[in-house]
Amino acid sequence: MRYADAVALLRTIPVFASLDAASLKLLAFSSSYLTFHDGEMLCREGEAGDSVFVIEAGEVVISKSQDGQCIKVAQLGCRDLFGEMAVICNLPRTADVHARGTLKVLKIEGDVFLQLVTANPDAALGVMRVLSKRLMHFTRLYQSMQYAHPEDSYPQLPSAGG
Amino acid sequence: MRYADAVALLRTIPVFASLDAASLKLLAFSSSYLTFHDGEMLCREGEAGDSVFVIEAGEVVISKSQDGQCIKVAQLGCRDLFGEMAVICNLPRTADVHARGTLKVLKIEGDVFLQLVTANPDAALGVMRVLSKRLMHFTRLYQSMQYAHPEDSYPQLPSAGG
Repeated sequence: MRYADAVALLRTIPVFASLDAASLKLLAFSSSYLTFHDGEMLCREGEAGDSVFVIEAGEVVISKSQDGQCIKVAQLGCRDLFGEMAVICNLPRTADVHARGTLKVLKIEGDVFLQLVTANPDAALGVMRVLSKRLMHFTRLYQSMQYAHPEDSYPQLPSAGG
Repeated sequence: MRYADAVALLRTIPVFASLDAASLKLLAFSSSYLTFHDGEMLCREGEAGDSVFVIEAGEVVISKSQDGQCIKVAQLGCRDLFGEMAVICNLPRTADVHARGTLKVLKIEGDVFLQLVTANPDAALGVMRVLSKRLMHFTRLYQSMQYAHPEDSYPQLPSAGG
């Protein structure tokens, strides 16, 4: 991918749309442009989470493993962002990510991502919106599963204040 | 609650800890100090979500209703923040919130909250961390429920790029 194309792509991602030209260029310049083939792994649960990905073309499947069983958590496509949670929380990856079909991504260094999105109020709000919408989605899923299986008991949300 | 006590409380909330003195005072000045009794409702699913709450003392139960069945989604306590998702996404409340026991909260106007936390990189990162940790929690819950009920099928995560 050409550098100018990367800037143009980043400008179409809602989270980055409000960044000024210099910030978009810095983001494009410090990104890696990678291609993965069907089934290839981009992230492994437990690994250091030091980068954020933007999908240029193709899809990824996000999954978690438990006792050898693979549980699909989400599927994302063109212009979606992923990998940001581990970077934001400075924690290891919480899931595996595999390419589904041929996949092209921009891999953005985590510290560059954090510096740019927290310094720009609209970008910060954009990241908060992505996270909030995903959270709403999983809360609805949890509600549906609790409704279907009211006998199940699961741990409560940890405190956010401490 | 006295104004100086509100500033002191807000300074202990991780999301607000990095705000400067002027911002903390603005936040305290523009907040309402409310007391609720056991079982009283603070937010109702579907209502406009124009404020964010910080728990000064006591607990809240966050729940959703489906076909007359009340499904508890989370329980939060002292110094926890809630109500931020609807404000961030400019969407109606996604759940009911009730007081559990006697509850004291600071009710912060949504626009003041958004203006302050997006203008301050550390506060912005703090909000992203609260959301990411809750998201990790619900992803783990979803994984546990899918593991327990592999026959269930639920809709995929909506695209974040569009």
